[in-house]
Amino acid sequence: MMRCGAKYGAWQRVARYMTAKSTDDRGELALIRRLKEELDRLGAPRAPAGIPFGDDMAGVQVGAMGLLATTDMLMDGTDFVSGEHSWFDIGRKAMAVNLSDVAAMAAVPVAALIAGSLNDGLSMGDALALFRGAAECGRDHGCPLVGGDTNSWQHPTVIAITVIARPDEGLPAVRRDGARPGDVVYVTGPMGGSILGRHMHPCPRVDTARRINRELGPRAMVDISDGLARDLGHIIEASGCGAELDEVLLEPLIHPDAVKLAERTGRAPLEHVLHDGEDFELVVALPPSVEAGRAAELGLTRIGRVVEEPALMLVGRDGARRTVERRGWEHFT
Amino acid sequence: MMRCGAKYGAWQRVARYMTAKSTDDRGELALIRRLKEELDRLGAPRAPAGIPFGDDMAGVQVGAMGLLATTDMLMDGTDFVSGEHSWFDIGRKAMAVNLSDVAAMAAVPVAALIAGSLNDGLSMGDALALFRGAAECGRDHGCPLVGGDTNSWQHPTVIAITVIARPDEGLPAVRRDGARPGDVVYVTGPMGGSILGRHMHPCPRVDTARRINRELGPRAMVDISDGLARDLGHIIEASGCGAELDEVLLEPLIHPDAVKLAERTGRAPLEHVLHDGEDFELVVALPPSVEAGRAAELGLTRIGRVVEEPALMLVGRDGARRTVERRGWEHFT
Repeated sequence: MMRCGAKYGAWQRVARYMTAKSTDDRGELALIRRLKEELDRLGAPRAPAGIPFGDDMAGVQVGAMGLLATTDMLMDGTDFVSGEHSWFDIGRKAMAVNLSDVAAMAAVPVAALIAGSLNDGLSMGDALALFRGAAECGRDHGCPLVGGDTNSWQHPTVIAITVIARPDEGLPAVRRDGARPGDVVYVTGPMGGSILGRHMHPCPRVDTARRINRELGPRAMVDISDGLARDLGHIIEASGCGAELDEVLLEPLIHPDAVKLAERTGRAPLEHVLHDGEDFELVVALPPSVEAGRAAELGLTRIGRVVEEPALMLVGRDGARRTVERRGWEHFT
Repeated sequence: MMRCGAKYGAWQRVARYMTAKSTDDRGELALIRRLKEELDRLGAPRAPAGIPFGDDMAGVQVGAMGLLATTDMLMDGTDFVSGEHSWFDIGRKAMAVNLSDVAAMAAVPVAALIAGSLNDGLSMGDALALFRGAAECGRDHGCPLVGGDTNSWQHPTVIAITVIARPDEGLPAVRRDGARPGDVVYVTGPMGGSILGRHMHPCPRVDTARRINRELGPRAMVDISDGLARDLGHIIEASGCGAELDEVLLEPLIHPDAVKLAERTGRAPLEHVLHDGEDFELVVALPPSVEAGRAAELGLTRIGRVVEEPALMLVGRDGARRTVERRGWEHFT
């Protein structure tokens, strides 16, 4: 099973739906645009709590308090394979992918709810392992599981977790749309080939994201759920600019799994770095004033820069520039 | 397709899962108890925002602010039948059942998120109708749809909505566990036979619940999702007491659909009133000091009283008392 990231941000994964119907981006964008139009027509708030439609989390305005919330649904056979993965790991991943969205906004998780339709072949032990995985992962990030709704049916298991979060004290949530030409693009870790197993063990960068927000004044941030190209694409699209990635900077970030996977697929490892999903690292645009050393202290590695021209480009070792398609891995298959 | 309510409260529907494995309550209770033990072991807050585990909504503590949240997952073939019901109505119901939980606590809805795995036979128009149904129902109750996650797959459609709510100004959320012997039991409307169609058009009693909370000082409240007997059962169990229902008071509350359904099933219409789910009316325990006239002004009809003996009893026209089993409709089939 080769696929791309398990998640889009708030509303983003509506897009996934349309990929079943159309192989290009127009169908996806059309559905998101029409959905946005519907919500506008119904008088939905345009940017509750200051968060525009389509970021990693949605804004939730409660009186004077601005909160954030995200939901992510995982399906057996797509986001996990119950015959291969343990129910504990599946529950853990279901929580972790949501917490990765919280990290993408540098927010502080507050509480989670879980809803599931469990295949009726699961035992009580399986169900408890699933909840335990989700609850332990939440606990590790200060996010207690406070409620849920669980059902059984004869079809494959589906799990949806919703996480409520708050902005960090005195700091804004980090959106996607603040990148400016001249900003420097960083990433929190190596990428590619997560499908070989890492995709089941995401480590949401909640604490790192808060430090980045507190210490480095990030302009824009996302987590890599759908692949570096696609997720950095979200930043440049929302920010109305472009980005250039340097091959020479990306090469040290090729995960060993990307090399291993490339041997099987016959593609270059760098292609897997650009287009594989579910690494759940963070991609950050920092102002040029941030010293490289300070970014390095937080585990950030420079991979490129934000530019004016609205495209995503890769600058090769030889200096040649080529366009990087903003697509996730599934489109290759 | 005969079934009981589409929802349990926060965590309650974990119970549904076990009904696939066991036909009595012991399996359900065992799973809920073990899950609670797991969460306690992980150091989960015991009653965040003052709401104990297992109420209609979960408590969410955000700094000094106590919020509430609930999630409910609907499955094609169980909670709706996509071949019979419109996608608009399906989306509407998915939102309404969550808002009914908000009503059960007399809370004020703030925002909703939707997650779905849509069968890949849905057109873009179907998907939009689903979202529109959910969004319009939310809008009607002051609850904007702010985010989501939607996927497609080849299996039946599953939709999970999460609603975040806040307590009403200056008032506590109404829990299940405050009923006391001597309280009077009321209901907001007629019951039974919702499966004939009303179950797809729930009208969440959000405004009525707020008025009840503001004007009548309710001791305990739930919505009828799993049937009067089962849901009133939640109140008396949480409150450590019992209740007596009067046949003579219930008879005027037999919905015409209950009569119609009874003709088909051969059961008494009153059985359908007691055990059919998805009426989404409210059951309220009011202190005896509340005048019947004031309750009637809010559309409340008296059906019985809270007693010490921890059982649910029906007092017949002839004065004979019989135990009412606290089960939903599905156990009859």
